[in-house]
This record gives sequence, C-alpha cells and structure tokens, in this order.
Amino acid sequence: MPDRNDAVVSLAKRRGFVFPAAEIYGGTRSAWDYGPLGVELKENIRRQWWRAMVTTRDDIVGLDSAVVLPPAVWEASGHVATFTDPLTECTHCHKRYRADHLIEEYENKKGSPPANGLDDIACPNCGNRHTWTEPRPFSGLLKTYLGPVEDESGLAYLRPETAQGIFLNFKNVMTSARKKPPFGIAQTGKSFRNEITPGNFIFRTREFEQMEMEFFVPPGEDETWHEYWLKARWDWYTGLGIRQENLRFFEHPKEKLSHYSKRTVDIEYRFEFGGSEFAELEGIANRTDFDLTTHSEHSGVDLSYLDPETNVRYRPFVIEPAAGLTRATLAFLLDAYAEDEAPNTKGGVDKRTVLRFDKRLAPIKAAVLPLSKHADLTPKARDLASQLRQFWAVEYDETQAIGKRYRRQDEIGTPYCVTIDFDTLDDQAVTIRDRDSMSQDRVALDKVVGYLSERLPGC
Amino acid sequence: MPDRNDAVVSLAKRRGFVFPAAEIYGGTRSAWDYGPLGVELKENIRRQWWRAMVTTRDDIVGLDSAVVLPPAVWEASGHVATFTDPLTECTHCHKRYRADHLIEEYENKKGSPPANGLDDIACPNCGNRHTWTEPRPFSGLLKTYLGPVEDESGLAYLRPETAQGIFLNFKNVMTSARKKPPFGIAQTGKSFRNEITPGNFIFRTREFEQMEMEFFVPPGEDETWHEYWLKARWDWYTGLGIRQENLRFFEHPKEKLSHYSKRTVDIEYRFEFGGSEFAELEGIANRTDFDLTTHSEHSGVDLSYLDPETNVRYRPFVIEPAAGLTRATLAFLLDAYAEDEAPNTKGGVDKRTVLRFDKRLAPIKAAVLPLSKHADLTPKARDLASQLRQFWAVEYDETQAIGKRYRRQDEIGTPYCVTIDFDTLDDQAVTIRDRDSMSQDRVALDKVVGYLSERLPGC
Repeated sequence: MPDRNDAVVSLAKRRGFVFPAAEIYGGTRSAWDYGPLGVELKENIRRQWWRAMVTTRDDIVGLDSAVVLPPAVWEASGHVATFTDPLTECTHCHKRYRADHLIEEYENKKGSPPANGLDDIACPNCGNRHTWTEPRPFSGLLKTYLGPVEDESGLAYLRPETAQGIFLNFKNVMTSARKKPPFGIAQTGKSFRNEITPGNFIFRTREFEQMEMEFFVPPGEDETWHEYWLKARWDWYTGLGIRQENLRFFEHPKEKLSHYSKRTVDIEYRFEFGGSEFAELEGIANRTDFDLTTHSEHSGVDLSYLDPETNVRYRPFVIEPAAGLTRATLAFLLDAYAEDEAPNTKGGVDKRTVLRFDKRLAPIKAAVLPLSKHADLTPKARDLASQLRQFWAVEYDETQAIGKRYRRQDEIGTPYCVTIDFDTLDDQAVTIRDRDSMSQDRVALDKVVGYLSERLPGC
Repeated sequence: MPDRNDAVVSLAKRRGFVFPAAEIYGGTRSAWDYGPLGVELKENIRRQWWRAMVTTRDDIVGLDSAVVLPPAVWEASGHVATFTDPLTECTHCHKRYRADHLIEEYENKKGSPPANGLDDIACPNCGNRHTWTEPRPFSGLLKTYLGPVEDESGLAYLRPETAQGIFLNFKNVMTSARKKPPFGIAQTGKSFRNEITPGNFIFRTREFEQMEMEFFVPPGEDETWHEYWLKARWDWYTGLGIRQENLRFFEHPKEKLSHYSKRTVDIEYRFEFGGSEFAELEGIANRTDFDLTTHSEHSGVDLSYLDPETNVRYRPFVIEPAAGLTRATLAFLLDAYAEDEAPNTKGGVDKRTVLRFDKRLAPIKAAVLPLSKHADLTPKARDLASQLRQFWAVEYDETQAIGKRYRRQDEIGTPYCVTIDFDTLDDQAVTIRDRDSMSQDRVALDKVVGYLSERLPGC
C-alpha cells in the first residue's frame, strides 16, 4: 500500500515530524530537517539504541568521533579507491542515474536481470533507449578543505560512515576503558555520502544519521558472534513494535560482498517504494580483521590485543551491526501508521488516523486538555501540565472540540490524553484516555504522575 | 592555576573523556574525539540543556536541521560576505595567525592596545618583528560540493552555526506546532568553522557542537526578554554546579557588535588559557528582526506573524542564547576538578583527585565493587550491576585494592560506590559510599535501587 507512504509523508510535514531542508529556498534534495515531533521521535529511537547497546551492557562502551578526517584515514579504509557508484548519464535529457540501481529496478519488475545490460532499459526521465553513457566510477565521498590555504595540503573528507572513527580509537578506548575482547564500541552521528540520486523521502539522503557498533572478538569466535548480533538486532526492532512480517533477512551473495566483508546480512524493512518491496534498514557485517590490519599498516601503530592469560597477541575480528537512524525513524513511522475508528460524542464513530508507536518512542507522552477555555479550568490544567513536564514531553491544547483534540493526539501517537472538566473542580480528579484501547480512567489529580509512571516505564 | 588545565587535559586522555582525533595518523589539530566517559558527560549536558530549554517549557520546541546548506542561505545570512577573520602571516617563518587575536593578547598582557598595531608585536613562533603581511579577510566557511559534477552548481557550505536552520524553518515550525510569539525553537548539533588557529584543547576547534535557541518575540518586548535570558542562562550554569566566581558577563562594545546584533552579552568562564583569564562560554544576542527580514527578502517567502487578536502583522525580534556544548563540556570538567584527601585503610590519608560533577552530569552514576575476586562475591556483584544498569550508567570493577578502586571512581566523578563484601553473604546488604562526603551507608541489597533513586533525581 504505497498510499500509506504518501499519507505518512504528508502527515510528517503537516504535523512537524519532517520538513524539506531549506524549503524556503526551493529545498536541497540532499537532506531533510526534523521538526519538533521528529526530533523527539528520532532522539527516542537513538536513546533506546544506546540503552540496548551501551547502558544496559557490561561489554560495550560509547564514543563520539570527528566527522571531518584526513585523506590518510580514507586511503587506509579503502574508501578513496573503492567507495564509488557507477554513474551513467542519458545523453538525450542529461539526467544522471546509478547504473546498478537501473538494473536492480529492471530485475525487480521483470524477475530477471536485463540480458543486454543498460541497452534494455529506457531512460526513466525521457523514455529514450540506447542513450546511456558508459558507467564511470563516481566517488561518494564529500570533500572539504581545512586551514587557511585551499590546496591539497588541507584536503579532508566528511565521513561516509561513523565506523572508521571507532577503528582509529580502538587502542585508546580499549586501554582507557580497560576492556578486552569480546567488547564493543558504539557511536551514533551524522554521515555524508554524495548520492547520485537521493530520494524516497528520508530513505536515501546525502546527509543522514547512523547508529553503528563495532564488536571486537577473538578470531574464530566471529561467526558465533555474527549470529548473536543478527538475532539481537532483529529482536530490538520487534521489541520496539516493528511487525515481524515487515522485516526480513537478506544474505549478501558471496560475489557481491564489500572488500572488507566475510559475510554480510541485512535486516530489511517493507518500505514499499516504487521499485522494490523490501529495502535495507541495517547491515550486519563480519568485517574480519580488515580494518584493524589496514589501519595498523597505514599508521604504523599496532592495533592488536595481547591476551595476558594466554600471552597470545592477535588482531580481533569485527562484527558490525550498522543501523540507519534516519531509516529507522522512517520504518517506525510507517509501521506505526494506522487508520481505524473511534467513538464520537454523538454515539456514532469517527474515522481516525493513529500512530501506534511503542510508548518509549512516542514523541509526546501525554496531552493535557481542559474541556473548555474557562477561567476555572485553565489554571488547574496548566498546573498539571507543568507538573507532568518535569518527567515527560507533554502537550497542552485547549482549542476546538475535545473530539478534534483527541484526533490530533492520536495522529501523532500520544499514548495518554488527560482531560480536565468541570467535575474536576468538585472531585479533584481527571479523565485519562488510552490511545490504543480508547478506554478512560478517572484518576485523582495527585495520582496522575503515579498513574502515568506505571504505564510509561523506561520513558 | 594553569596546572589545573594540564591536569584536566591529561586526565581526560588517560581516563577516556577526550582523545585527539585521528591520533594514530598524527592527529588533525581540527577536532577531538569523545571517549566512553566524554560521550556520556557531553550527552548529560545536552540532556540537561534540552530539559531546561524544551521539555519543561510550554513555549519552546525542538528542531534538528541539516548541516550542509546551499550558498543562497549563507548569502542571505551575511556569512558569505562577512564571516571572515583577519589572516596575517609571518614572512619569516610562514606561520599564520589571526591579527585580531595577536592584538587582543598584547592588550591582555600590557593593559592597552599596541599603538602601532601589528608592528609592535613579535611573531610568537620565531620572535621576529615587522614580518607581518597586511591582514586579509579569510572565510571561516567550509565548502563542499554536492551532486555528480564538482562545479559551482553543486557548491554548498557546512553550517558555521545551527541558528540559520532555525530561521529557515520558522514558518513550518510555527504552523505545525501551533505556536505564537513569544516562543522559541531550540537545536543542538555540530557546526564547522575554518579556524585559522585551533587550540586550547577542545575550546577552539574546527568541528564543534552547539546548543542554540532562537526566541521569537514581538518587537518592543525584545529588551525585556534579553534580560530574562541573560539571567536564565547564568542560572542554568550555576544550577549545575559552576561556581559564581568563575563566571562573568561581558558586554560587547557597541562598535564591535556583529552586523545582526542590537546588543550581545557573553557569559564568560574562567578558562585561564595563556593569553586571557576569562573566555566566551555562551553568547546571548538580540538579533532583532535581521534574520527573518533578510531570509524573507532573499527567499521571497514572507516570514512574519499575523496576530489574530490585534490583526497586526509583524516580524518577530529574536533573542538568541547560543551556547557551545563543547565549551560547556570543558567548563564543567575544569570546574569539577579538585584535589583533596581521603582516609585510607591504614588510618592515614591519601591524596585523591576528584571530579565533583553535579550528579546529573556525572558520566557514571554508580560503581559496583566486589571486595575481592571471589566465587561467592562475583555473581552477587554482577547481578547487582546488571540490575542497576536498567536505570543508570554503571561500572563494574573487581581488580586491585578497594582503595585504589575508590580513587579511580573519584577521579571520574562517580557519585556512588557500592561495595559487596563477605558480610553481604550473611546480611544481604552492601556498603554505599558517597563521593563527596565519603560517608558510608549499609543498605539492604533489595533497597539499593530505591536508595540510589532518591539520591539521583533527574538522572
């Protein structure tokens, strides 16, 4: 149902989850901005990841390393030589495409790859055939210049992945945090790739956020740990509400593995974009000892571990669960989207849109709604809202009919609506409505924090 | 006491707060990486800022906008024309400096500005005089190229401040969040400036993090709100433990105000770098309606507000508290640093280093320390640690003498050390030691979470 996608994109803009970057200047196509609700949702996802990967574990620590790094790093990592996409241009309309994407889309539609390569594919923009240039490798690295002279001496690249910053700090972290393999280093943050064709809303952008963890293990234990992380990462998504049927594993064929990888398995989500049903949400790779070896050789610093018990020195293998925070945000939005019916005040039903976020991810945890703008209700309602704000992100809304205000909160996934009415003045109690069951409880004003605390664990 | 600065830099490296970026390749001078403790400290500061500025308030919402933006944005903002520093070079040794910094340092040392400008100043590197080139304006913007062809059509700049992303989204946010002035938009994130001379540890770097809030108010209310934010921001620092005597306000002289500013007041911290005692921690500017006006004119989109009650349309004025997250991290580290004495097991005292962080900022909230590596103690201690990790960042440490382990936790500012000893096997209780008072309480194992919860509010 691509209708769902359109509905989510439209809702995201209207309610302040996601805006086109620099929209007043015509937009950039490269990036999107996260509005008041989007920034809370994204932050909640990041926090759950950090909690699962770092805080609750004894064997993983965090890191936040620099975005701009010198060419030596990217030469060692292989990015300067191999981080390229095959770029082709239609000589008729001059639109540029990734040749591999054109071929994949053909295969997804027809069930088999084009026998004559690009020759079998018409330009998606102008419809002409046999107009493609020979694909040439195009670097995905964004460059910049540091320092007071703009020449090769100041050349630097914006990181296309956060992972390399982790490898550079392997020794510093292992020593200062007194860890030994198996242990991991986790980091979240922005990465930049010069995508030829950004698109599909926030799915493919030139500026995006990652949540990556490099898990260093003794060689020989790598395959077992790979299986462990495949399961752990799958469970993380389903534990936060993604439906099993919208996820699948995709095993990268041996012949298409990246230069550093022994085995890579993606967790794919049913994004349902034009060309394909499933697409990558997270890649989980066995990077072997490629990275520590190449950085040892290029830097001259030995990145190995001496096991004090066995007195054996070795370079750990690396298992890398690399998730897209931006893509996860899109997946959680799509998966939460639902349309159903809610009883209205006239005894009938209204259609409603509801984002069924896991409560831990919901950008707003509770809304305080005085039944009407009345001098007796407003101060009580405002007091309650500011009391709740000590603990959670809370909205206060006093405009328009209560039914309409419920719909507004359903649409952004707020788990609880707290209504203050004229009875409140007598019984010092409020009505709390549950987003999903739509059941209502009458709760004493001084018990609201406790009531919500019980129902919002870990929020 | 510059000794304090050296001690903090050394502790930061040794214990995993801050590492030089790309150190194994000789370092970049441009940026620093945040290790396992640094990333927690920085995140805790960010979280307290977000809580104070967004979550607990009804009138401020959050945003997370793009880093790379097209030239049109930076032409409108004035950055392309005026975001420059005066660059001078010593013709003898070819070291480059900011001319304004050379003059400021002279003034700080001698008490008055040099009568003959740079002619009175010797090169700090080679000691020669009269070797300075005529200062030329040098752009602080880092450029990059987006899209498949590297020419002017793809030129873009990395943001030197997060503020402009807020102005671009003024209308989208105001509409979707249903706000009206006075209201604010807050964001944290990385910014990039091509500093001529990065230095003083994490104080001046080419890549850094900001916490900025733009507060939109009706014209005429701007001066009152400016005073409000000066006080609110001062109180935020002191509320989180910065000592009053290490802060001061610095009023920018009228003739040195930025092109957008009617009045700017900095909050300065006693960083005590070589040249100067106090330096900027946060700038709080009255930006007037400069930004909304210039973006309206350049984009053609009217960025004004129509007050539905008075039917008056106006461009809000902007009060901007712009804090450096990176600088705040340094200030909190420096201010927390102390050396004192702790009783040792022999009835004497040991010297100790302690980071007296506010508990909300401490990277690790509690350490679990089994008295010795003993088969009876280890499982109990590990169970407790993993129970506490459900709520807080926790360290588990079982190596070396208990006194040494206390010193290790003091040095990173851990508020509570929980010791499991052989009595625990009988009385099912543990000893909890307070970092600051060094007093010890005996607490039942099943009461530890409650004991810590009471003492770690808002953590």
